[in-house]
Amino acid sequence: MQFHLNGFEPGDPEVADAAQPAATSGCSGAVPEQVDVLIVGCGPAGLTLAAQLSAFPDIKTCIVEQKSGPLLRGQADGIACRTMEMFEAYGFSERVLKEACWINETTFWKPDDKRRENIVRSGRVQDTEEGLSEFPHVVLNQARVHDFFLDVMRKSPAHLEPHYARRLFDLQIAPDAGAGDNADPYRVTARLERLDPAHEGQTETIRARYVVGCDGARSAVRKSIGRALHGDSANHAWGVMDVLAVTDFPDIRFKSLIQSDSDGSIIVIPREGGYLVRLYVELDKLDAGERVSNRNITADNLIAAARRILRPYTLEVKEVAWWSVYEIGQRLCDKFDNVPEQDIQHLPSVFIAGDACHTHSPKAGQGMNVSMQDGFNLGWKLASVLRKRCAPRLLHTYSAERQAVAKELIDFDREWAALLASSKGFDAAETQRYFVRHGRYTAGTAAHYRPSILTGEPTHQHLAAGLKIGMRFHSAPVIRLTDAKPVQLGHVVKADGRWRIFAFAGATDPAAANAGIRTLCDFLAGAGESPVRKYTPDGEDIDSEIDVRAIFQQDHRELAIEVMPSLLLPRKGRYGLCDYEKMFCPDLKGGNDIFTLRGIDRDRGCMVVVRPDQYVAHVLPLDGYAPLAAFFDGFMTRQH
Amino acid sequence: MQFHLNGFEPGDPEVADAAQPAATSGCSGAVPEQVDVLIVGCGPAGLTLAAQLSAFPDIKTCIVEQKSGPLLRGQADGIACRTMEMFEAYGFSERVLKEACWINETTFWKPDDKRRENIVRSGRVQDTEEGLSEFPHVVLNQARVHDFFLDVMRKSPAHLEPHYARRLFDLQIAPDAGAGDNADPYRVTARLERLDPAHEGQTETIRARYVVGCDGARSAVRKSIGRALHGDSANHAWGVMDVLAVTDFPDIRFKSLIQSDSDGSIIVIPREGGYLVRLYVELDKLDAGERVSNRNITADNLIAAARRILRPYTLEVKEVAWWSVYEIGQRLCDKFDNVPEQDIQHLPSVFIAGDACHTHSPKAGQGMNVSMQDGFNLGWKLASVLRKRCAPRLLHTYSAERQAVAKELIDFDREWAALLASSKGFDAAETQRYFVRHGRYTAGTAAHYRPSILTGEPTHQHLAAGLKIGMRFHSAPVIRLTDAKPVQLGHVVKADGRWRIFAFAGATDPAAANAGIRTLCDFLAGAGESPVRKYTPDGEDIDSEIDVRAIFQQDHRELAIEVMPSLLLPRKGRYGLCDYEKMFCPDLKGGNDIFTLRGIDRDRGCMVVVRPDQYVAHVLPLDGYAPLAAFFDGFMTRQH
Repeated sequence: MQFHLNGFEPGDPEVADAAQPAATSGCSGAVPEQVDVLIVGCGPAGLTLAAQLSAFPDIKTCIVEQKSGPLLRGQADGIACRTMEMFEAYGFSERVLKEACWINETTFWKPDDKRRENIVRSGRVQDTEEGLSEFPHVVLNQARVHDFFLDVMRKSPAHLEPHYARRLFDLQIAPDAGAGDNADPYRVTARLERLDPAHEGQTETIRARYVVGCDGARSAVRKSIGRALHGDSANHAWGVMDVLAVTDFPDIRFKSLIQSDSDGSIIVIPREGGYLVRLYVELDKLDAGERVSNRNITADNLIAAARRILRPYTLEVKEVAWWSVYEIGQRLCDKFDNVPEQDIQHLPSVFIAGDACHTHSPKAGQGMNVSMQDGFNLGWKLASVLRKRCAPRLLHTYSAERQAVAKELIDFDREWAALLASSKGFDAAETQRYFVRHGRYTAGTAAHYRPSILTGEPTHQHLAAGLKIGMRFHSAPVIRLTDAKPVQLGHVVKADGRWRIFAFAGATDPAAANAGIRTLCDFLAGAGESPVRKYTPDGEDIDSEIDVRAIFQQDHRELAIEVMPSLLLPRKGRYGLCDYEKMFCPDLKGGNDIFTLRGIDRDRGCMVVVRPDQYVAHVLPLDGYAPLAAFFDGFMTRQH
Repeated sequence: MQFHLNGFEPGDPEVADAAQPAATSGCSGAVPEQVDVLIVGCGPAGLTLAAQLSAFPDIKTCIVEQKSGPLLRGQADGIACRTMEMFEAYGFSERVLKEACWINETTFWKPDDKRRENIVRSGRVQDTEEGLSEFPHVVLNQARVHDFFLDVMRKSPAHLEPHYARRLFDLQIAPDAGAGDNADPYRVTARLERLDPAHEGQTETIRARYVVGCDGARSAVRKSIGRALHGDSANHAWGVMDVLAVTDFPDIRFKSLIQSDSDGSIIVIPREGGYLVRLYVELDKLDAGERVSNRNITADNLIAAARRILRPYTLEVKEVAWWSVYEIGQRLCDKFDNVPEQDIQHLPSVFIAGDACHTHSPKAGQGMNVSMQDGFNLGWKLASVLRKRCAPRLLHTYSAERQAVAKELIDFDREWAALLASSKGFDAAETQRYFVRHGRYTAGTAAHYRPSILTGEPTHQHLAAGLKIGMRFHSAPVIRLTDAKPVQLGHVVKADGRWRIFAFAGATDPAAANAGIRTLCDFLAGAGESPVRKYTPDGEDIDSEIDVRAIFQQDHRELAIEVMPSLLLPRKGRYGLCDYEKMFCPDLKGGNDIFTLRGIDRDRGCMVVVRPDQYVAHVLPLDGYAPLAAFFDGFMTRQH
C-alpha cells in the first residue's frame, strides 16, 4: 500500500479523505459509577488490556484517557514479531501486515576510510532470524495500532469505547482484610477531573474492583500507590522526526544504523505507505542534570544534524509530520502492583503497566511492544478472576512475570543504547554482531517466565525441545485434518481467555484403543480429576475453558475422523453442532513437519499446555494426568 | 474463524450481535438527475463495476437496486482463484481469505459395490492445481462479497452508496449520430419506480451517458435493448440449501461430489465459519415445459432427499439458513450491448453484464465469478472513455471479449451439468478425471481474449511463455529491490484503471549504458513517440496512466539503486517524492525465480503489457518501441 505521497494524513489510509477519527469515537456521556476494572490511559498497554476485557460481556470495564480523542500521529512505531503474533490472537494481524512497512533487512553505515567525512555501507543483515516467527518485523504509526484495538473493542461483546478528556485526580484504596476478605469488592475509588471545555473542572467518581494505571512515565496511578521509577539519569539526548523527504541515500527504505565520523549517528526507520521515514538523530551529550527540553532544539536543528551525518548524501525534508526530542532513560519500578514485596496475604487491587512501570530507549523498539505484552498478560488474569474461573492469588503473577521481563529488557536496552551512543563512535562490525545476537530480544521472543503456579518445571521439556516452558508458543504450519486447510497451529490461540492443551500424538496408531491420545481424551472427557471437567462451568461448551487440540504424525489423508475420540469432535452450542477444528497433521508436502521443527518426541508424543496469552505453561507426557491435574489445581477454581 | 454455531446470522462475523447491515447503508435521498453511468442492479457484476468507477472522483455514478437493502443470505458462494486475484486488486483479498472457507481438496463418493444402497469414498483430489494461482479457491456467502464491495465504494474518492428500492421501468436511448456525434452526451433516459413504502409508486427520471444492466436473468435493461437469452430449456431441477446440521458423513468439511445408486446426487460445499454447509440436491427430471416452481418442493423434501443419498450416513438438520430450487439453464445473449452485430460505426451506450446476459449451472460455481469479471472488464473501459484517456471505440471490446468467454464457459458448464445429471448416474472416475482436467475453468484462469485492439498478436509470446497474451497475468513471488520485501508481482496491478508495463531485464548488466532496461526507460521517459509521454496528461504523475516496473535477474543485494534509470525512481506528488516500488528481483532464496516460473527469455528479456483488469495485453521485445507505441496508439487518446 502506498499513501502519504502528498502529505501525512492521520487515520485509515483506505478511506479517501478520511475525517479525523476523533470525531466519531469515544463515549460522550459520564463514566459509570461502578465498574469491575478501571483502566487509566489509552496507550498500547491500556488498549491491549481493554480489548482483552471487552471480549467478556459479563465484565464491566471503563477506560479513560487525558487526551480529547484518539492519538493521530507520532510516538512509537516498531512492531516486533512477537507483537504480530499477539495481534493475530486479537484478530487484526492481516490488517497490520497489509498497512505496515515491513523491516526485511537492516543495513549498517560507517565513516568511509578514504574520506572520513563521508559514510559508506559496512554491512547488511536479514532483520529477523530465519524461522523465528511466522510474522515479520514491521513498523506502523502507533496511532493505527490504537485504531485496531479500538475497532476490536467497538465490535466486541462489551462494545467498549474510551472516555476521553479525563485526568486521574487520585485513588483511594480500601484496606484489604486478606485473602478471605468479605468486604465491599469495589475497593478502589478514583476521582477523575474532566478536561473537555463543556465539563472542564468537573469531578467524576468511579468505584472499581481493580484499577490499572497505563498512564505513562508520569503515571498518577503509580504515584498513588507510592511507587517510583528507578534507573538512569540519562544524559544522552536524541531527536526523532517523521518526515517526507527527498534523498539520494540509497537505503532510505531499509532500517539503517548510520555512524558518522564526527557528527554523531542516525537510525533510519522506513515507514508505512512507501514515502514516510522516521529519523532518530543523536544530539549532543547533556550536562549533568540538564534537560533536553531546556536546549530549545527545533525540527530545523534535527534536520541540519541529519544532513551532516548523511554526507555525501543529500536530504531535503518536504514535510515534518511529527517530531520530538527526548533523553534516553531506562527506568523501572520495583513492583507492578500495590502489594508490598513478599506480602502474599494481601491481594493486589491496583496495577501499573507499560511506561508507568518501565521505560526504554526508543531505538531498540521495545517500549510499545513490552507495554502491549503487559496488557495481554494482565488481561486474561483479571478476566479469569472476575469470572471466578481462577483464584485471585493468580494476580500476584502479573508483577512477578512482567517486572522480571522488563528488567531483562532494560539491561539489554542499556547495553544497546550505550553501544550506539558511545562517545568514541560505535564500531560498526561490533554493532552488527550485537544486533544479530540480540535479534530475539528485539523480536520480543526472548521473554522467559520463571517457574511459578502458572509455569511448570522443565522436567519433561525434552519431549518438546522447541516449545520452551515459560516462553511464547512458537507456531508452526500444520494441515487441519477435517478439511486439509494449511494453517498455523499457534493461530488457534485467540485472545479469548481460554487455555489450550496441544496433544502431540506418539508413535501408536491413533485409531488403536491404547493410543496415548485416545486414553488422554478419555481421561479429559470422563475422569473426575480431569481439569476439563472440574473447571468447565455446567452448561458451557466442553472447550470453553480448556481447549484440547490434537496433532498427529501421519499425513492427513491417512487418518479417518470416524475413529477419533469424541472430545476431538465436540458437540457445541445450542444445536449441538460438531466442531471440526480440533485435529491437525504435519505439513509434509511443504517440508515443514511440526514434529521436527519443534523437537517433539515422536515415540512418546507429549502434551503442551498453553496459556491464554500464548505462553507455554507446561510440557508433560501424554499420560501425565496427575501432574496435569495438579497444575490446573494450582490456580483454577472448581466450577461444580 | 468460527461462527454461526448458534444459528446463521447475517453481517460481519467480527461484530458481536451485529445490527442488520441494511439499517446503515444505502442513499436515502432521490437519485441524481444526470450521471455518467447508471448501473441497474446491486449484484456481483453491478457492485464490481460500481466499486471500480468509484475510484475516480471525476466520474458520477449511480447504482440502483430493486431490493430494499443489501443482500443478507443465500445465492452464490463459490469464489474462484481468479476472483481472489481480482479482490486483491480491489484491496480486500485478505478479508476474504480470513473469513471464507477454503476449498483445499475435493472428494468423490459412489455407490458401494458390496452394498449398493450405501455410498463409499472413491477418490480425493487437491482442489486447485499446484501453482495455478497464489490464491486458494474459497467459498463465502455472496452477501459478504457484496459487503466488501460496498465498503470499497463507501471508502472511495466518490463515496458511492446504492439507491435501494428502485425498479427500472424503462430506458429511452437517443439515436447515436455516429462516432463524431456532437449531440447531448446523456443519451439514455431511465425511468425508475420507487418501491419503498414512503415513496411507493413514485417515478424518478435519470439521464445517463451509459447504462449498464446488471439486473439478473430477467433483466429489464436487456429487454429494453431488445436482446434475449438463448439456450437450454433446462429440465433438470436442483435444490440448494444452507444448513446447520449434525452428520457422521466424514467429508462434511470437504467439497464432496456424491452419487448414490438410485437416489440421485448431492454436492456438499462446506461454508465459512466452520459449521454451515451448503447442499446441492438433485431433484427429479422435469417434464418438457414443466417449471420446478410448480412442484411445490419444500425444504423438508430437500432434506429427505439428502438423507436418502447420504446413506449409510445420517444427517440431522438443525437450521435451514436459506434454501431454493431452480432449473439448470445455460443461457446466453448474442451480444452484451445495444449496438447491432458488425456495426462499428455506432457506439454502445447500454451494456448488460452478469446474469442479464449469461446464466450458468450453480454447480460449477461460475455465475458470480464470471459476472464479477464482466464488471471488472467494463469498469476500466468506461472510466478511461469518460476520463478521455481512451477512444470510445474501446467500448466495443466489452461485448466481444465477455460474450466469447461466457460462451466458452457455458459450453463447459453444459458438459459438466450433463455429466452430473446423467440419467444413468455419472461414473465417479470419469467425473474425477473431468474435474481435474477442467480445474482451470473452475478456477477462472482459463479465460482467453482473442487478438483485438486491446490484445496483441502472439508474435513474441516465446519471450514470456508463461504469461499468455489474452490471459490473466499470472503472478509470481519477487523481492522488491529497494527494501527487500517479498511480494507478489501481480499484486502491483490494482483496480486503479492504470496500464502496466513489466520490463523483464535481459542478460546485460542493468547498470551498463546499453542495457535493454535502460534504453527502454530512456525511450519511455523521453521520446516523443513514447506512450508514457503521449498519454499522460500534463501535471499528472509520470505513472498515472502507464506504470512501468522492472524485474531484474540478479539477487537484490547485487544491485545498486543509485545507477538505475530515473523512470524507475520517479518523483511524484506535490512534493516530488521518490516512488521506491518500481523495481523487483527474483525470489532466489525461496527457489521461486520468476524468470523460470514464467518462462522469461533470460538472454533477451521482454516487456509484458498488462491491462487495468490484470489481463496480459502484449508481449514484446525490450527494444520493441515501435510496436509498443503502435499498440497504445490503437485505442488511447493523446493528452497534449
